[in-house]
Amino acid sequence: MQLRRILQTIGVSLCALACLMLFPALVDLADRNADWQVFISSALFTAFLGGLMLVSAIDNTANEFSLKEGFALTTLSWVAIAAFSALPFAGLGLDYTDAYFEAMSGLTTTGSTVLTGLDNLPRGILLWRSILQAVGGIGIVVTAIIMLPFLRVGGMQLFHTESSDRSEKITPRSGQLFIWITNFYLALILICTFAYVTLGMTPFDAICHAMTTVSTGGFSTHDASLSFFQSDAILWTAIVFMLLGSLPFVVMIRALRGQPAAFYNDEQVRGFLGFVVGVSLIFAIWHSEVYNAPFQQSLLTTTFNVVSIISTTGFAYEDYTQWSQFAVVLIFLLTFVGGCAGSTAGGIKIYRFQVSGLLIKGHFRTLTSPHRVFPLSYNRKRLADDVPFSIIAFLTTYVATVAFFTLLLAALGLDHITALSAAATAIGNVGPGLGDIVGPKGSFAPLPAMAKWALSAAMLLGRLELFTVLVLLRPEFWRE
Amino acid sequence: MQLRRILQTIGVSLCALACLMLFPALVDLADRNADWQVFISSALFTAFLGGLMLVSAIDNTANEFSLKEGFALTTLSWVAIAAFSALPFAGLGLDYTDAYFEAMSGLTTTGSTVLTGLDNLPRGILLWRSILQAVGGIGIVVTAIIMLPFLRVGGMQLFHTESSDRSEKITPRSGQLFIWITNFYLALILICTFAYVTLGMTPFDAICHAMTTVSTGGFSTHDASLSFFQSDAILWTAIVFMLLGSLPFVVMIRALRGQPAAFYNDEQVRGFLGFVVGVSLIFAIWHSEVYNAPFQQSLLTTTFNVVSIISTTGFAYEDYTQWSQFAVVLIFLLTFVGGCAGSTAGGIKIYRFQVSGLLIKGHFRTLTSPHRVFPLSYNRKRLADDVPFSIIAFLTTYVATVAFFTLLLAALGLDHITALSAAATAIGNVGPGLGDIVGPKGSFAPLPAMAKWALSAAMLLGRLELFTVLVLLRPEFWRE
Repeated sequence: MQLRRILQTIGVSLCALACLMLFPALVDLADRNADWQVFISSALFTAFLGGLMLVSAIDNTANEFSLKEGFALTTLSWVAIAAFSALPFAGLGLDYTDAYFEAMSGLTTTGSTVLTGLDNLPRGILLWRSILQAVGGIGIVVTAIIMLPFLRVGGMQLFHTESSDRSEKITPRSGQLFIWITNFYLALILICTFAYVTLGMTPFDAICHAMTTVSTGGFSTHDASLSFFQSDAILWTAIVFMLLGSLPFVVMIRALRGQPAAFYNDEQVRGFLGFVVGVSLIFAIWHSEVYNAPFQQSLLTTTFNVVSIISTTGFAYEDYTQWSQFAVVLIFLLTFVGGCAGSTAGGIKIYRFQVSGLLIKGHFRTLTSPHRVFPLSYNRKRLADDVPFSIIAFLTTYVATVAFFTLLLAALGLDHITALSAAATAIGNVGPGLGDIVGPKGSFAPLPAMAKWALSAAMLLGRLELFTVLVLLRPEFWRE
Repeated sequence: MQLRRILQTIGVSLCALACLMLFPALVDLADRNADWQVFISSALFTAFLGGLMLVSAIDNTANEFSLKEGFALTTLSWVAIAAFSALPFAGLGLDYTDAYFEAMSGLTTTGSTVLTGLDNLPRGILLWRSILQAVGGIGIVVTAIIMLPFLRVGGMQLFHTESSDRSEKITPRSGQLFIWITNFYLALILICTFAYVTLGMTPFDAICHAMTTVSTGGFSTHDASLSFFQSDAILWTAIVFMLLGSLPFVVMIRALRGQPAAFYNDEQVRGFLGFVVGVSLIFAIWHSEVYNAPFQQSLLTTTFNVVSIISTTGFAYEDYTQWSQFAVVLIFLLTFVGGCAGSTAGGIKIYRFQVSGLLIKGHFRTLTSPHRVFPLSYNRKRLADDVPFSIIAFLTTYVATVAFFTLLLAALGLDHITALSAAATAIGNVGPGLGDIVGPKGSFAPLPAMAKWALSAAMLLGRLELFTVLVLLRPEFWRE
C-alpha cells in the first residue's frame, strides 16, 4: 500500500483546513476578541504538520489509488481532519475529549453538542462550528459520489456515475464532477443565506445557519436553535433547504443541466419526498386533533420536526419529547430512516429501504410460486447480484452496531433510553436523542469521557457507511 | 384451494383439543371444585364444532396439500385452536379478550399472562395453562420440521428432512417422523417431571412445570415462578430442560439413534451452546464483581436468566430489571436471539445470525477482492441461492414488525419502554418485557383490550416465522 501517498493527500486536506481556520480568526479579530490567536496558532500548527506530510512523499508520481488505499485514505482522512479541527475548541478551554467530540459531531454533520450558552459565545467559535458542518457536508457528498461507489460499500455501487465506474482504480476524471458538486453546494448555501437575511436574520446568523442547514448538520448559534427567530417563514425556508441537502446531488445537478426528468423520475427522490410528505401530513392531522391546534400550525410543527430528523439535521423546534408516547416512538424510528444516497444526509437511507422492500415483495412471490424467477429492478435498471447482498450486509451490520454501542454506553452507566437513543442518533448522524441528557433540550457534556469517544467513533462509522471503517479493523486487510 | 379439506383438518385438531380439556376437568372433579363443569362444557362445545367441520368434507379423498393450502392450514389452525382453547378461561370469568390473550400466549409458548394470584387458583385452570404450552410446544416443533421447510419460510428450507423435501406436495411420509418427535418430546417431559419430583416439587407442580419447561413456555403455578421452590438444584434442572427444548429435535433424535456426531458437529447446536455458555460466563463474572456475590451463586443467577430469555421460556428468578442498565440492555437484546430452528424456542434463531454472519464476512472479502467469488456454506453444505434472501427478508421483516407493533402500542397509550419491550417479547415468544406493567414482576392485565389483541397477533406472527401469516394478508394469495 502506498501509505506515503495517503499521507500526502491527508496533508493537502490539512493545509486546506488550516486556511479555513483563518475565517473565524478574522471574525474574532474584527470583534476585538483575543480568541483570534487560538485560531491562528491552530492554523499554523495544522498547516505545519500538513505541509510536512505533503512534502514527505514529493517524489511520488502515481496518480491513482487502489481499492485498499481508497478505504484507508477515506477513513484516515476523516479521523485526521477531526483531530485537527478539534484544536480551536481545545485552545478555547474544552478538554480534548470534548473538543474531538464537537469536531467529529460537526464534520459528520451530526450536530450533537457539548456546548451550552451558545448565545454568549464569541462569534469566532460559532462560525468555526458552522464551517465544520459545511466542510463535512461537501466532504460526505464527494465521498459518497466519488469514493463509496468505487469501494462498493453497502450497496453504494448502485450510484456509479461516469467517474466512479467499476474499474479498479480511481481516475482523475472525478475532477469535473467535483467542481460541479462544489459549485452547486456553495450556490445552495448562498441562496439559503440570502433567504435567511431577507427573513430577518443578521448576516452572521444567516451564513452560519445556511451552512448547517444545507449540510443537514444542525448546529445553531443560539441555544433555542431556530425557535430563537420566532419566524414561521424561516422555519419553512429551513425545511426546504434541509430537504435539498438530503436529495441526491448528482440527480439535482442533472436536472439543472436540462434533464428535469432525471429528478422527478428518480425512484429515490420520489420515495423520499413521498415518505416525508405522507408522514408529515398524518403526523400533522394527529397533532392538530390531539393538541386542538390550527392545522397550519400543526403542519409546520410536525413537518419541521419530521424533516429535521429524516434529513438527519437535528434542528430543534418545540420539544417533541414532551408530546405523547406515539410521537416520541415515531420520531425515534425516523432517526433510522435518513435521506438519499449521494446527499449530506445520514441514516440508513431511502434506497436501502426501497431495495429491501423489493426483496421482501420478491420473497412473498417466491413463497407462493417457488419455481418462477422474479428479477429485481430499481430505477429502471436490473439490480446487479451483489447489490441486495451489500444492502443486507449493511442493514444487519447497522442494527448490530446500534446494539453494540447501546450495550457499551449502558455498561458505561447510561440509562437504557439514553444509551439506545444516543447510539442511534450518533450512527444516523442525526443529533438529538431521547431523555434529559441527550434529548433535544439537553447537552452531551455530562456524559463520561469514554462515552464521548464511543459516540465519536459511532458518528464516524455511520458517516462512512460502516464498512469503510470496519474493513480496516480486519487483520486480513493489512496482510500482504 | 381445498378449503373444506383445511376445515376438516382443523376439525380433527379441535376434537383432540376437546379431549385434552378432560384432564383439567378430572383434576377439578377430584378437588371437588365446580370448575370441572366449565371444562366439560368447553370440551363438548369444541368437540361438537370440531366434529361438524370433520364430517363437512367426509367425501374428500385427496391425501396431499398444495403450497397455498399449507399456508392457510398452518395459520388458520393456530388461530382456531387458540379461539377454542380460550373457552375455559372465558368460562371461568375472564372476558374473552383476556381469555384469548392467555390462550394464545400459552399455545405460542410465550408465557405472558394476564392472571395474578396463581397460588390461589384452582388446579384445573393451572393444569390447562400448562397443557396449552405443552401442546403449543409439540405443535411448533412439528410445524417447524414438517411444514415450514416445505413452505420455505424465512430460510427454513435449510432444514429439509427426508419428509419435507423440495416437492410441491406434503406427503404422508411425515407420519413416521411425527411419531419419533412426539415420543421424544413426551419422554423429555416425563424425565423432567421425575427430576422435579425428586428435587422436592409436588407431583402436580412437577408435571405442570415440566410441560412449561420443555416447551420453553414459562407459565408457572406460582406467582414467584421457580423462585417459589427455593432450590438451586431445581433451577439447574430447569436450565438443562430449557436448553433441551431449544435444541433442534431432529438432530437430538438422530444422535439418540446412534449418530452422536450429528449432534456435536451441528453448526447450529455448537453456535447456540457456545453463545449461551459465553454470555452466561461473562455475565456471571460481571454479576459476581458488581454485587460481590459468590461466583457459584452469580453463575446460577445469570445462567438461569440468560437461558430463560434465549430459550424464550421466560421463567422469572430474581428481578433482573433491578440490576444495572448494562444488565437490562443485555437481557433486552437477548430477547431477539432465540434458540435453534426445529425446537420449541422462538426469536430470530441462531442459524439466521450465523448465516448473516457468513454474509457479512463474505461482504468484507468482496470489498477488498471484488472479482473473486466466495461460495457460502453452512453445516458443510453449500447454501442454496434463495436461502440468504429468505433469511434477509425475514430479518428485515422482523425488525419492521417490532417497529410496527411498538408504534401501534405507543399509539394505544403505552409508554415507549413498555411498548418496545412488549412488542419484542411477544414477537420473540419470550414472555416478560421491561417496566412495571409487562416486566417479569408485572402482569399484562392492565393493558387496553386493543393492545392485548395486537400482542396476540404479534405472538402468532412470531411463532409462525412471520411470513406464514403475512402471506395470507396479500390479496394476490387469494386470487385464482
